[in-house]
Amino acid sequence: MKIFVPAANCQIKEDACAYIDQLTKPPGSLGRLEQFAAELAGMTGNLFPEVTPPGVLVFAADHGVVVEGVSAYPAEVTAQMVYNFARGGAAINVFSRRIGALLEIVDVGVAVPIDNERVIGKKVRRGTDNFAKTEAMTPAEAEQALHVGYEQAVSIIGQGARTLIAGEMGIGNTTAASALLATLTDEPLERIVGKGTGIAAERLVHKQEVIRQALALHRPDPAKPLEWLAKIGGLEIAAMAGAMLAAAERRIPILLDGFICTVAALVARQFAPNVADYMIAGHRSEEPGHGIALGLLGKEPLIDLRMRLGEGSGAAVAFPLLAAAAAMVSEMATFSSAGVSTAEAKGEKER
Amino acid sequence: MKIFVPAANCQIKEDACAYIDQLTKPPGSLGRLEQFAAELAGMTGNLFPEVTPPGVLVFAADHGVVVEGVSAYPAEVTAQMVYNFARGGAAINVFSRRIGALLEIVDVGVAVPIDNERVIGKKVRRGTDNFAKTEAMTPAEAEQALHVGYEQAVSIIGQGARTLIAGEMGIGNTTAASALLATLTDEPLERIVGKGTGIAAERLVHKQEVIRQALALHRPDPAKPLEWLAKIGGLEIAAMAGAMLAAAERRIPILLDGFICTVAALVARQFAPNVADYMIAGHRSEEPGHGIALGLLGKEPLIDLRMRLGEGSGAAVAFPLLAAAAAMVSEMATFSSAGVSTAEAKGEKER
Repeated sequence: MKIFVPAANCQIKEDACAYIDQLTKPPGSLGRLEQFAAELAGMTGNLFPEVTPPGVLVFAADHGVVVEGVSAYPAEVTAQMVYNFARGGAAINVFSRRIGALLEIVDVGVAVPIDNERVIGKKVRRGTDNFAKTEAMTPAEAEQALHVGYEQAVSIIGQGARTLIAGEMGIGNTTAASALLATLTDEPLERIVGKGTGIAAERLVHKQEVIRQALALHRPDPAKPLEWLAKIGGLEIAAMAGAMLAAAERRIPILLDGFICTVAALVARQFAPNVADYMIAGHRSEEPGHGIALGLLGKEPLIDLRMRLGEGSGAAVAFPLLAAAAAMVSEMATFSSAGVSTAEAKGEKER
Repeated sequence: MKIFVPAANCQIKEDACAYIDQLTKPPGSLGRLEQFAAELAGMTGNLFPEVTPPGVLVFAADHGVVVEGVSAYPAEVTAQMVYNFARGGAAINVFSRRIGALLEIVDVGVAVPIDNERVIGKKVRRGTDNFAKTEAMTPAEAEQALHVGYEQAVSIIGQGARTLIAGEMGIGNTTAASALLATLTDEPLERIVGKGTGIAAERLVHKQEVIRQALALHRPDPAKPLEWLAKIGGLEIAAMAGAMLAAAERRIPILLDGFICTVAALVARQFAPNVADYMIAGHRSEEPGHGIALGLLGKEPLIDLRMRLGEGSGAAVAFPLLAAAAAMVSEMATFSSAGVSTAEAKGEKER
């Protein structure tokens, strides 16, 4: 798979900053909305960026490592939640409707057969193997999952999506994401590995130990990203990374969700460093590793509401703030067009 | 004016918490959205609260204290911005359209005549007097302004508004709001008084000194709220407080904007302590006194995007998060309705 991601356009970003200072408000008074509007201009190459409608892709897959007892929920919840998505009853359905999103549910590796016309069947394999004992999948399977995500993003962008939100469902996937993140940082596992869907303290220690042993067994190397994903990754994580690569190639902004999604963003960056230019962090998750992952990406999130659900839900809830930033540029009057006086003293126009 | 504000219904709030734990997500995983949904239930008395459409009331008035040189912008900007609101070109117009709000612009005391069919003319007087030298207005005028706000809120709620956002426009109003706040706290003026629309450092020191002298001159007492408002308040601040009282009386949630609005909320509380039960803080402003005002109200804001514009803009930008919280309760499936398994071990269902 050949991927070329151009850098964001810093000239248009600068032009946007100058234009935003002419809008009828004290300079800088819309705070980070102004910054995000300028970043969107640089990403899209358009002074008046369009982010609506967003496209939400939820990738679902299972994780062999669940047999080690790392999750509060049984593995069958992955498939049960896929049917809940198909019926429109999950959080991501509710929040996607509110933002007028295109929403697609993709089975990239659920352990059981999924037969539902509202679920896109792209199963690479029936869940990963238990990476505490063996490699999660082959590098070819990791590449295939990446490709599924890439193709789905191309498709939803073709349908008109102007922002990408990549979500996930996969019981056990905070374990895989924590393992991946641990290979990118010197932070101790105790600071990276969290309670996921809500495990008790003893099980958290066990989860950390399972990851520690897997890392010792596989010695995964992020510089060889397909092998790295194959050893300790997940099918939905690979697909999310592939979707982000496709969006960035097309200059489509990517609004990140929580911990799993941000680790997938770090995976995408191992394939094409410029992909990070197209990312805006939607929210700060309660999962402790999320702050570390955001720090590696150099992103400050839009909201912090102590959410930790996944599915793309945090990004979907944050999306209206990004849309407000874009609308500010397109729709506000300028001082000259509105006949409003500017600040009296030049020194006071600065923030 | 007789006002009776009932306390929020704590029984329905508890029922809402129990119901929210049955939705198809790990308990607590939607973080503060769950908390806000429960609070909305207690405010409205409805397990499935409705917050849409919001009603945005922007009250405009001038401030005599501007002659002391406390603002970066000339006083005529108040009227210029009122015409900008009428034409739909200001930030609050853009953000109100995005959230499908009912929006009304109310002249409660602009210094010059405003002749525009899209502006509701309720001028109590042509701006306040300079409170550095004399009382800003009479107690009767303060009560009249409060009443204007009350009536406008009754009207917009009658048109269908299900959440109140009170915004303002008034060059000089951070000076009045700072003076009011200073009488409610022991915090020094240096921590309360900020740059407003963006004044330079020397002018900030001058602004603090003007407020210090006004407080020494008037010795305003918040326990006599009409006199307190009359001495150092503003017409739009009184109107915002009146609007909040009308909303709370009708169990309509109030989404607070920034510094001026939160000081108006503290003013409303001097008239009816229960009014605070109906308030949710929309955003944290860059104005330093805002954190102090929020602390006095005991509110933690939804977003922190370093905004400092006023007009109701921060609340309007934050509104979709409140709407997402309400939609979560109304639209998500429960574990039993969706046939999804709950957590395996009872201890792990707790946050």
